[in-house]
Amino acid sequence: MANSIYRASVLQSQLLFRPSLSNKHSVPKKSNLLCIASSQLNPIRSEVSFCIGTHLIPHPNKVDRGGEDAFFVSNINGGVIAVADGVSGWAERNVDPSLFSKELMANASSLVGDLKVNYDPRILIRKAHAATSSTGSATAIVAMLEKNGTLKVASVGDCGLRVIRKGQMIFSTTPQEHYFDCPYQLSSELIGQTYLDAVVSSVELVEGDIIVMGSDGLFDNVFDGEIVSTLARHSDVVEAAKALANLASNHSMDSRFESPYSLEARSKGLDVPFWKKILGMKLTGGKLDDITVIVGQVVTSPAAASLNQVQMTGKMEEAGSSDTRGLL
Amino acid sequence: MANSIYRASVLQSQLLFRPSLSNKHSVPKKSNLLCIASSQLNPIRSEVSFCIGTHLIPHPNKVDRGGEDAFFVSNINGGVIAVADGVSGWAERNVDPSLFSKELMANASSLVGDLKVNYDPRILIRKAHAATSSTGSATAIVAMLEKNGTLKVASVGDCGLRVIRKGQMIFSTTPQEHYFDCPYQLSSELIGQTYLDAVVSSVELVEGDIIVMGSDGLFDNVFDGEIVSTLARHSDVVEAAKALANLASNHSMDSRFESPYSLEARSKGLDVPFWKKILGMKLTGGKLDDITVIVGQVVTSPAAASLNQVQMTGKMEEAGSSDTRGLL
Repeated sequence: MANSIYRASVLQSQLLFRPSLSNKHSVPKKSNLLCIASSQLNPIRSEVSFCIGTHLIPHPNKVDRGGEDAFFVSNINGGVIAVADGVSGWAERNVDPSLFSKELMANASSLVGDLKVNYDPRILIRKAHAATSSTGSATAIVAMLEKNGTLKVASVGDCGLRVIRKGQMIFSTTPQEHYFDCPYQLSSELIGQTYLDAVVSSVELVEGDIIVMGSDGLFDNVFDGEIVSTLARHSDVVEAAKALANLASNHSMDSRFESPYSLEARSKGLDVPFWKKILGMKLTGGKLDDITVIVGQVVTSPAAASLNQVQMTGKMEEAGSSDTRGLL
Repeated sequence: MANSIYRASVLQSQLLFRPSLSNKHSVPKKSNLLCIASSQLNPIRSEVSFCIGTHLIPHPNKVDRGGEDAFFVSNINGGVIAVADGVSGWAERNVDPSLFSKELMANASSLVGDLKVNYDPRILIRKAHAATSSTGSATAIVAMLEKNGTLKVASVGDCGLRVIRKGQMIFSTTPQEHYFDCPYQLSSELIGQTYLDAVVSSVELVEGDIIVMGSDGLFDNVFDGEIVSTLARHSDVVEAAKALANLASNHSMDSRFESPYSLEARSKGLDVPFWKKILGMKLTGGKLDDITVIVGQVVTSPAAASLNQVQMTGKMEEAGSSDTRGLL
């Protein structure tokens, strides 16, 4: 056990991180900010929803088709967010790896309000997967916020989600993989995984909590500690998403950076050739990849009632990077 | 995204870890194995429960009073497990740090079946904390398994829980701390944390899943990868708990081991004096501490109906270490 008894003076440092929500009442048409309003069926009982910012940076070699990540954001209930990441190995079989992930997310976006989905992220994965006819495969994560603060998460593969409260990470999903760099994946082929392989978890959120969801392009290039410190510097969710995506992108192109990806590779026994080791060299560097980041902050007030029916799917609007601006 | 498309041959390696439950039908009085039976209210619907093994090794300097960790195991519903870890700093104020943690767990054990607790781990923490009159403070974690497979977890501080499925870690709690080595803690003083500070999460378990709960004495000395590999070598939950506790104990006494604790310390800027750095030395070593390990495996059959009313609280029966053997 730790030696230290908690003393009041410590609390001051915890309070340094108080995210501002100054922008929550302003949602211009071209804004990259989405505040998801929840209706007040019972005004006495506090209900929560998400204020969300997103940022997507495609792999530098895949800018022309917007990369192979896809995502969607919906305001159903307290809010739904999802990311899918197309498995690039399909390109070797002359299949565009982005087709499967994009169709999967489009289907999920269409089905999210279906009564049979019953606001269950695993059922949404099942139905969206069943409705996807493209050849390919993808990792996928879905998170649904109930108005009482319960965030339900279902994940197949190595997309991820973190929850940060008062400047500390309090919850994290864990990736599933068959072996290094081969994650669990929903597939057009029978051999792939299904909703039955999803890890299903939940966490109780409170006002002010920040969630960060992303593809492995984020988590392979940015350490959890960096996510926390980046959020501490950006009180606006859009700016936070952009900063995290840019940090991941910069690390992905830095051959000397000891990234989570390179550390994982070395822990699995992968390294530079023997003669390089003699010269003191080791396996380093980030991982070039599509990078999708969704940052959501939990709010209790219905911040943008005009967005009550909004759904948003990710699409790249600029060469190289994009904030999501599209409203369906 | 990873390059690799999942191929069937990979699955073989996943199947290597198939925990045997050969001991589940045998629960001798002095056994350190506890199988928690769930009643079959609806025999058509599969219900789950835990098969549990525990092991506690007190801090070498605290063997005489059994250390400052405490825990309990109950068979209420699908099973309840909890660990508390007394904050050792109270010894500087001439307060026995074990009193608070032990009373907290005794109260939790008494209250776990209370209808007002409503099988909610956060409410159990609230009620057990309120009923505790000893001076002191402790970190605490409570996990409750519902018969449908939902494991509900509430944690204040740096006790932890891991879930391992088919040889992979799929779920992990995240510790909360004010600063390095000063965790969130339930306290006799107003300045401490309460049930409101608990991180509340849940994860859906399936038959065969292994959970590992422990005090920071486990997680500060044993990496997650070591937990997974240790479980792969021990199909019996008692042997697994013992092996994990012994591994933590060995690491805690190894001044050269680069433990999770020493890596965390260095990441927080702590290190050896400058002159030692010049000599190439760095902060290493495990952390001497009380070590509590609870290993539970999810089973679907009512393995030991005779234990239907069993509750068990941790107590040390041998100098130096103990498997839990006591039945209340």
